[in-house]
Amino acid sequence: MPTTVRAYAAPSATEPLVPTTIERRDVGENDVLIAIRYAGICHSDIHTVRGDWGKIAYPQVVGHEIAGEVVEIGAGVTSFAVGDRVGVGCMVNSCRECENCRGGLENYCAKGNTGTYASVDRDGTITQGGYSTHVVVDKDFVLRIPEAIPYEAVAPLLCAGITTYSPLAHWNAGPGKKVAVVGMGGLGHMAVKIAVAMGADVTVLSQSLSKQADGLAFGAKHYYATSDSETFRTLASTFDLIINTVSSAELDINAYLKLLRLDGTMVNVGAPPEPLPVRVFTLFNNRRSFAGSSIGGIAETQEMLDFCAEHGVAPEIELISADQINEAYERVLRSDVRYRFVIDTATL
Amino acid sequence: MPTTVRAYAAPSATEPLVPTTIERRDVGENDVLIAIRYAGICHSDIHTVRGDWGKIAYPQVVGHEIAGEVVEIGAGVTSFAVGDRVGVGCMVNSCRECENCRGGLENYCAKGNTGTYASVDRDGTITQGGYSTHVVVDKDFVLRIPEAIPYEAVAPLLCAGITTYSPLAHWNAGPGKKVAVVGMGGLGHMAVKIAVAMGADVTVLSQSLSKQADGLAFGAKHYYATSDSETFRTLASTFDLIINTVSSAELDINAYLKLLRLDGTMVNVGAPPEPLPVRVFTLFNNRRSFAGSSIGGIAETQEMLDFCAEHGVAPEIELISADQINEAYERVLRSDVRYRFVIDTATL
Repeated sequence: MPTTVRAYAAPSATEPLVPTTIERRDVGENDVLIAIRYAGICHSDIHTVRGDWGKIAYPQVVGHEIAGEVVEIGAGVTSFAVGDRVGVGCMVNSCRECENCRGGLENYCAKGNTGTYASVDRDGTITQGGYSTHVVVDKDFVLRIPEAIPYEAVAPLLCAGITTYSPLAHWNAGPGKKVAVVGMGGLGHMAVKIAVAMGADVTVLSQSLSKQADGLAFGAKHYYATSDSETFRTLASTFDLIINTVSSAELDINAYLKLLRLDGTMVNVGAPPEPLPVRVFTLFNNRRSFAGSSIGGIAETQEMLDFCAEHGVAPEIELISADQINEAYERVLRSDVRYRFVIDTATL
Repeated sequence: MPTTVRAYAAPSATEPLVPTTIERRDVGENDVLIAIRYAGICHSDIHTVRGDWGKIAYPQVVGHEIAGEVVEIGAGVTSFAVGDRVGVGCMVNSCRECENCRGGLENYCAKGNTGTYASVDRDGTITQGGYSTHVVVDKDFVLRIPEAIPYEAVAPLLCAGITTYSPLAHWNAGPGKKVAVVGMGGLGHMAVKIAVAMGADVTVLSQSLSKQADGLAFGAKHYYATSDSETFRTLASTFDLIINTVSSAELDINAYLKLLRLDGTMVNVGAPPEPLPVRVFTLFNNRRSFAGSSIGGIAETQEMLDFCAEHGVAPEIELISADQINEAYERVLRSDVRYRFVIDTATL
C-alpha cells in the first residue's frame, strides 16, 4: 500500500493550508484502504484547524466527508470488496462496548468516538482526515455508497446529510408534521431536502430572502426572513420540529422556541460555544423541548445514504481543486457557498 | 347562595394576609357552588401575592389546591350532584376552542387559561382563590375526588400532584425507567410518590440528606446530596427523566443535564424567572432534551386523582388553621414544611 500519501494540511492555526504528504497505517485485518475521490469542506474543518474548539497538534489534515473506492482490504474484511464505492464520515472508531455503541449509536459513545481527524487513534497517533488521496479505516466505520447518488456530490451526506437526517428521523419528521429549518447553509439545505423527502411541510427561516428561490426549489413550502420581526409573530406556536443549523449564540433562542406548537422540539445541530439563555416560561407554554443532536450512528448513516438514493436527494455542491481550498474557507466564513464545497482529490 | 363569603386575603404585596369577606358570583347554568373544606398552600401563592411574578390587584385571595363539597349546582349541570366531594386546581376556565383545549390540554390554552386566582374572569372580575369558605366554578373545571384519598390531604394533588404527574406520565416514567427528582419540597415529594407508584426506579437529588429517611420511605431507591460534587460524577449519564422542581436559577443546569443518559429529558416544573444558560454541547451528548411542563389538563387531572386513589398515593401535609397562614408562608420560604400546608377552612 502507499503508506505515504498526498494531502493538504494546516501547518498552524493561522497559516493557509498547504500541500504535503502524510503516512497512512498498514492495512490491518479489519481495515479498508480507500482511494479518496472527493472530500467535502465542512465548517467544522475550519473551526478545528483554527483552534476555535480547542488546541490541536499541527500539521493537521481535516475533512470528514469522504467518498472514494476500496483499493485494498484486510484479511478479515468480507463486507467490502476492491472497487466498491464507499464513504467515511465524522468518526472512524468508538469503544464498541458501551450501551450506546451496542445500540448502534456510536456517535454517542460513552467514551467518546474517534473523530476522523484531530482525534487520538487507537495506536496513539492523531487521526488525519479526508483532504488526502487515501485513507485506511476500520471496516465497521465504512459506508456503502449507492450508485444512484452522483459521485462528486455524495461526500457532504457523510456529515451535513447525517447530521440533519438523524434528528429529522428521530423526531418523526414526515407527513402532517410542520418542520422549520433555521439557516440555509451546508447543513440547512440538506435538512430542507431530507425533510421534504420525508413528506414534512417545510419552512425555511433564514436571515434574508436571498436564497428563497433555492429553498422553494428544494421543496420548502414557506420561506421567511428572520431579520423581519413580523416573522416571529406570524409563526408563533406553528412547528412540530425546528432544526437549528446556526452556530451563533447571538440567535435569540427564546424567539425561536416560541415558534413551537404543543409538544414541539427545537433541535440544535449548530454548535454555539457559549451557553444559550433558555427561558423556562417559554418551555412551559406548549410543553416545548430544546434538544441537541450530533451526527448519527453508522447503521443510521447507511440508512440515510439509502434513503437519499431512493428519493433522489443529493447535496448542491461546488467542485473545486485543491489549490482553491484556502479561498473556499474564506467563502464558507462569509456564507458565500451554494451549498457545499467538494474537493476533487485528483488535484491534490 | 351566599354571595358574600369569608376568606383570607393579601391587602398588598408587603402586608400579612388578613381575614376578610369577598363576593362570589351567582351560580350560573353551568356552575357548581363548592363549600371549601381544605385549601393547600402552594409556593406560587406566595410569589403571586408578593408580586414576584408581576403586579396584581389587591386585595387578592390566593389558593389553587381546593377540596370541598358541592352545595348547589346550576340547571345545566348533570355531572355533579349536591354532596359530591370535588376539587379545583390551578385553572377555572379556558378558551375551549384552540387546538390545545380541544385536545384536552386546557393548561396549554393558546389564549391562556383563566387562573383560579389573580386572573381576569370572563365577567371582567379578578378571580379569587381557595383561602375561602366557598367558590363558584364552571362544571368543566371541577374534579371528582375519589373517597379513597384522605379528605384533609387531597387538596395538594390539585397543583403539586398534577404538576408532577403530568410530565411523569407524558415522558413515560414506569418500570425500567430511571427517574430523578430534584428538590424534596411540596412538588418534589409528590413526584417521588407518583413516580414510585408508576413503577420507576426513583432517585432524589436534594441539597442535603436531611430528608433522606422520608424520601426512602416514599419509595425512592436512592438519595443523593447535590451539595456533594461527587454526586454529579457518580450519576453521570444515568437518568431517563429528571423532574426539576427547583425554581432557583442558581441551580447549575448543565451539571444536571449531564446526568441524563441517551435520549433522556430534564423537565422543569420549577419556574425560575431568569433564563438558564444551557450548553448545547451538553445536549449533544446522549441526544439530551430540556423541557418545560405546566400543571395538566382537566381530564389528565381526573386521571391523576384516580391513579392516586388506586395506588394509595397522598400528599404529606400539616393541617393548619387560618391564623397560621402567615407563619406558614415564612416556613415555606425557608423550606420548613413536610411537605405541604393545608388550611382547614372551618377556621376562616
